[in-house]
Amino acid sequence: MNSFGIKFKISTFGESHGVAIGCLLDGVPAGLLIDEEFIQAELDRRKPGKSEFETARKEDDKVEILSGVFEGKSTGTPIAMIIYNTNQKSKDYSNIKDIFRPGHADFTYFHKYGLRDYRGGGRSSARETAARVAGGAVAKLMLKELGIEVQSGICEVDGIKSLEFDYESAKKSIIYALDSTKEEAQKEAILRAKNEHDSVGGVSRVLIKGVPVGLGQPLYYKMDAVLADAMMGINAVKAVEIGDGILSASLKGSINNDAIRADGFVTNHSGGILGGISNGEDIVMNVYFKPTPSIFKEQQTITCRDEEVDFSLKGRHDPCVAIRGTIVCEAMAALVIADMLLLNMGSEMSGVLTYYKK
Amino acid sequence: MNSFGIKFKISTFGESHGVAIGCLLDGVPAGLLIDEEFIQAELDRRKPGKSEFETARKEDDKVEILSGVFEGKSTGTPIAMIIYNTNQKSKDYSNIKDIFRPGHADFTYFHKYGLRDYRGGGRSSARETAARVAGGAVAKLMLKELGIEVQSGICEVDGIKSLEFDYESAKKSIIYALDSTKEEAQKEAILRAKNEHDSVGGVSRVLIKGVPVGLGQPLYYKMDAVLADAMMGINAVKAVEIGDGILSASLKGSINNDAIRADGFVTNHSGGILGGISNGEDIVMNVYFKPTPSIFKEQQTITCRDEEVDFSLKGRHDPCVAIRGTIVCEAMAALVIADMLLLNMGSEMSGVLTYYKK
Amino acid sequence: MNSFGIKFKISTFGESHGVAIGCLLDGVPAGLLIDEEFIQAELDRRKPGKSEFETARKEDDKVEILSGVFEGKSTGTPIAMIIYNTNQKSKDYSNIKDIFRPGHADFTYFHKYGLRDYRGGGRSSARETAARVAGGAVAKLMLKELGIEVQSGICEVDGIKSLEFDYESAKKSIIYALDSTKEEAQKEAILRAKNEHDSVGGVSRVLIKGVPVGLGQPLYYKMDAVLADAMMGINAVKAVEIGDGILSASLKGSINNDAIRADGFVTNHSGGILGGISNGEDIVMNVYFKPTPSIFKEQQTITCRDEEVDFSLKGRHDPCVAIRGTIVCEAMAALVIADMLLLNMGSEMSGVLTYYKK
Amino acid sequence: MNSFGIKFKISTFGESHGVAIGCLLDGVPAGLLIDEEFIQAELDRRKPGKSEFETARKEDDKVEILSGVFEGKSTGTPIAMIIYNTNQKSKDYSNIKDIFRPGHADFTYFHKYGLRDYRGGGRSSARETAARVAGGAVAKLMLKELGIEVQSGICEVDGIKSLEFDYESAKKSIIYALDSTKEEAQKEAILRAKNEHDSVGGVSRVLIKGVPVGLGQPLYYKMDAVLADAMMGINAVKAVEIGDGILSASLKGSINNDAIRADGFVTNHSGGILGGISNGEDIVMNVYFKPTPSIFKEQQTITCRDEEVDFSLKGRHDPCVAIRGTIVCEAMAALVIADMLLLNMGSEMSGVLTYYKK
Repeated sequence: MNSFGIKFKISTFGESHGVAIGCLLDGVPAGLLIDEEFIQAELDRRKPGKSEFETARKEDDKVEILSGVFEGKSTGTPIAMIIYNTNQKSKDYSNIKDIFRPGHADFTYFHKYGLRDYRGGGRSSARETAARVAGGAVAKLMLKELGIEVQSGICEVDGIKSLEFDYESAKKSIIYALDSTKEEAQKEAILRAKNEHDSVGGVSRVLIKGVPVGLGQPLYYKMDAVLADAMMGINAVKAVEIGDGILSASLKGSINNDAIRADGFVTNHSGGILGGISNGEDIVMNVYFKPTPSIFKEQQTITCRDEEVDFSLKGRHDPCVAIRGTIVCEAMAALVIADMLLLNMGSEMSGVLTYYKK
Repeated sequence: MNSFGIKFKISTFGESHGVAIGCLLDGVPAGLLIDEEFIQAELDRRKPGKSEFETARKEDDKVEILSGVFEGKSTGTPIAMIIYNTNQKSKDYSNIKDIFRPGHADFTYFHKYGLRDYRGGGRSSARETAARVAGGAVAKLMLKELGIEVQSGICEVDGIKSLEFDYESAKKSIIYALDSTKEEAQKEAILRAKNEHDSVGGVSRVLIKGVPVGLGQPLYYKMDAVLADAMMGINAVKAVEIGDGILSASLKGSINNDAIRADGFVTNHSGGILGGISNGEDIVMNVYFKPTPSIFKEQQTITCRDEEVDFSLKGRHDPCVAIRGTIVCEAMAALVIADMLLLNMGSEMSGVLTYYKK
Repeated sequence: MNSFGIKFKISTFGESHGVAIGCLLDGVPAGLLIDEEFIQAELDRRKPGKSEFETARKEDDKVEILSGVFEGKSTGTPIAMIIYNTNQKSKDYSNIKDIFRPGHADFTYFHKYGLRDYRGGGRSSARETAARVAGGAVAKLMLKELGIEVQSGICEVDGIKSLEFDYESAKKSIIYALDSTKEEAQKEAILRAKNEHDSVGGVSRVLIKGVPVGLGQPLYYKMDAVLADAMMGINAVKAVEIGDGILSASLKGSINNDAIRADGFVTNHSGGILGGISNGEDIVMNVYFKPTPSIFKEQQTITCRDEEVDFSLKGRHDPCVAIRGTIVCEAMAALVIADMLLLNMGSEMSGVLTYYKK
Repeated sequence: MNSFGIKFKISTFGESHGVAIGCLLDGVPAGLLIDEEFIQAELDRRKPGKSEFETARKEDDKVEILSGVFEGKSTGTPIAMIIYNTNQKSKDYSNIKDIFRPGHADFTYFHKYGLRDYRGGGRSSARETAARVAGGAVAKLMLKELGIEVQSGICEVDGIKSLEFDYESAKKSIIYALDSTKEEAQKEAILRAKNEHDSVGGVSRVLIKGVPVGLGQPLYYKMDAVLADAMMGINAVKAVEIGDGILSASLKGSINNDAIRADGFVTNHSGGILGGISNGEDIVMNVYFKPTPSIFKEQQTITCRDEEVDFSLKGRHDPCVAIRGTIVCEAMAALVIADMLLLNMGSEMSGVLTYYKK
């Protein structure tokens, strides 16, 4: 249950304060150029401690490839990547050893497993998402060869919404803001919450360009369903919408339907997916992150012995998890598309015959 | 790719105008009382033609159990259920044989598979959801023995939102309205759209009561991720939110975190799930349906030979797919919980030893 | 757990004395011509009651396709096939209602599930293999388009071994004998056992011609491992060997290695598989069936209340299950190869790029 | 495709001459005591270079646990284990860079993937089985708590068969010989082949004691089918038999059926499995290994440019892979049983209700 994908499959391991985290990628086609610098660059985009808008915890997140690559190319065998944990301050967590932090998985892990690794959330820590980003980077390398690009940015912070979605702008922004005219207000909201020992929520918008028509496996591995699965599974995500999403529920059919002309769809209310299958338009989705549950304000909770306590969390935390979370959304989206590309092969008999030169 | 679930698994088959539709349930524990009347009653809740708010197409949807049940109990072997198609008017579709209906899967199926069953959407038709409801009914029978109940209702139609969520009220409402004070306005909106040859969107709200703490398999088969997958995979669904969902993205952490006291959680912003695992509170989610794409207004589209055409759809269609869709949401939710219950067994060594009486 | 395969997947349902048995095929590429007569012909090869060497129980085994085929071609959606049970004499089994038949699954099903469908073995009956044969027939239709052929025959009955393996001969033989010079002796052995109210074991030999190099997914979905899984899972099979198999364990490496020349392998000790991947040579395997456990001699057993009883079985049974079993071996082998063909697509980046015309 | 198991799942990575090999174990129940010394001891039983009957290549095979264990116990999260490669002499393989070694996977990997890691077989090297042994050791720790024990030994070398199966004897034997009276002859056969620059085949016999009745998931994840899959997937294995296996194909039903008395089965021809489900008796199987394909005699082969060459292999190789292979058989068998134990939970409604205390 620590794996995602069917043909292009990632499995991850590791806890925030264990020896290392990492991932296994199974199903990467042989002969793909594995650009290690690109993988590291992707990890650098997600790594903490780059600015005041993120946790002060610095982690190098140096990735090492252990297998599956020979002379710079994938060999078709599992690619194992490892990131050693280097800047863990487990002592920070001694005061929460027996405490269930509100909004965290402490309570549920303890009750599910009968014990928990209390250091920094253990397995449930968002630290694990570094492994996803490493895997997503390899997926992106494959997508690039097919002319597919996954981009993202922040379109809302603390209720302050973007009016424009400029992905180039987002690349340059320290908070990955899609609308540069809203960026300052969004930054201020983050710092204000931080100063008040609180946190804010935010929304990531993901754009996938160049997806060929026909990806997605009906009826229970649809493109939109799997993207929803992938996004909702990211730490702190509470809602996912595809295309016009929530808005479409209040539209008329005559407005919401995308007319089709010989040169393509006239509009893209559907967000690039019809009947669970990509229609060749841009795939667009919004991913809603709750505010970071780790705040320094005093909170009410209980211990694992059911004792009620009021406590204040210590440590170093992101005031807005959506910021670094958007990089994880990209990674997961890339993994989904890579998987769908491989799964789609063999949908038609004529494609099978051509593949085997019959 | 026509299966859902791991240990309690449903596989469905059938097209809207083929011989029959049906499902296979694999993994139903042996010894469960199979109440066929209840299964049929669930299908009756979903079946079309019950009122003017639905398609005029009448289908009996009589379900027949072919296997897996002996002397009224499940035997642990696959339960196959079949519903013969009886009221298909394939001729209704002869005029759309070569046309891609906007908002439908016609375009994408044709390009993915190189051909399509054009009669009523074929496999992509919402008719397939009758098989889900049959499977979900068996899941509900199992959940009932564990004191778990799945309920739902309509909380928004054409932008008219419910202010109250009364599931008993919904049971009595012909449109499953959760707020009886909004029901009339919602009905009017549906009929108005119908008369204008248009359609409206809507939102289903699902409530799951009695789920034990600890269900959900981290990190890639989390309760919320799988629910999102299940809901987004239903025809016409474009967004899913868990608990406060979209709202939580604009809240502060100090508000959004649910405080914990000795007798339970003080609030339920999380919607009953923390870290992907159930926390014992009610699981709550909203499922957003787009307006029915089948409308009678003239629309622009192309044929499978890329010719542009303006056409008007004929046939019988639901003016608001969310209405009957809410029953499908319940069914899928029940299937998810049943699967999670079985998957969770064996999470702890002490549970394993007790099971095997060691 | 009632499914086999990943991309070309069969799921079966049904008990020997239930309403019907059948299968779902998921992943059949769209556009495959579905020759229903061929499917029925394959079922006819397996059906009982064709001669004195088989059970006297006659079953028509008429297969009906419920979905997934439109205008004679597969559509890419699940193909459901059903065979109604017509000639069940459940009364034959009333005397064994509480008895565990030796050599049968009665004892294990009862203890696993807490109850059992005692009529003719229920789900554990070899009757289920008719559904496999129907699924295997569709796989064969696909293989034929790729120039791959699966054949089989009986190479041993009651210890009487074939010295020649003539698959054309087997096709004409009522007991599918590979060596016509041994056929009479093998037939006599079967009849002798039958007259003595006993049964005999036998061995099926399977030959797969035309498999392209490269099929099989290392390291845990190897061609040989999956074939072993498929064969060992057939009722009454107790051993499987690939190529020289058992013999190779007593050979020297210098003998057992197949030398390679520019025009191919010089010998085929390996049975067409190296490192779990097909090497382009014929795939050859032997499948060992135990004698039918259903015999009419008096046997010692217990009831489900642990009472010791001596009893004599009644009913109609095959004196040698290997005979009809060989048709099931073919079906399962065809399903494996079909799955491997689809899974292999995407192993190399160059193949992916070509498929998507990049 | 580099994973095995469903609920207790192992995924492995690594090549013989890469940075490291290792495995991920997903699904290990929380609270299991992880005895690292035992895991290392199991690896030591498999590691090469212990005697003249094995390859002269010495590898320490020190295993390190990276995740999933906290304060000595499993936490329910993935257990990652890594073994760094330390004694690789890649230069040994420069002369076979372009050559397909007969009996090896060189030819098939090259054609499947379009390239290959030629150093020591890369991924197809039996070195990967060290990762299986590490995973199997954890499975054994779990089995021990349930009173289940997996043992094995060598019952045949170069055609010299054991007449007795003494597993205690095997534990003390450097070649794991089950019959001490045959051990010398078996050793001589190995050394003789080694001196002649050749190799010999052998057979491993595996015994599993204490398996509860009811394990195995019909119809396509049967205990015997999955064991066959697991064994056939081990490098160099060419045949698998359960219980009397091959012999049973030449027996009469009246002999082969195991009579049942109130105190258990009278005989165990079935090898502890009926209808794919364990019956509580010892599970017994034989696993047939071909002779090591790496021999120093001159052999005929071709290069990847289809040039014919005669060549002599260099390097360090086991003269009989069955010896160390038997430890791998144990590991895979332990993994299968662990998986089946967890999968079986939830087969009956009464077990589900008890687990959830309803």
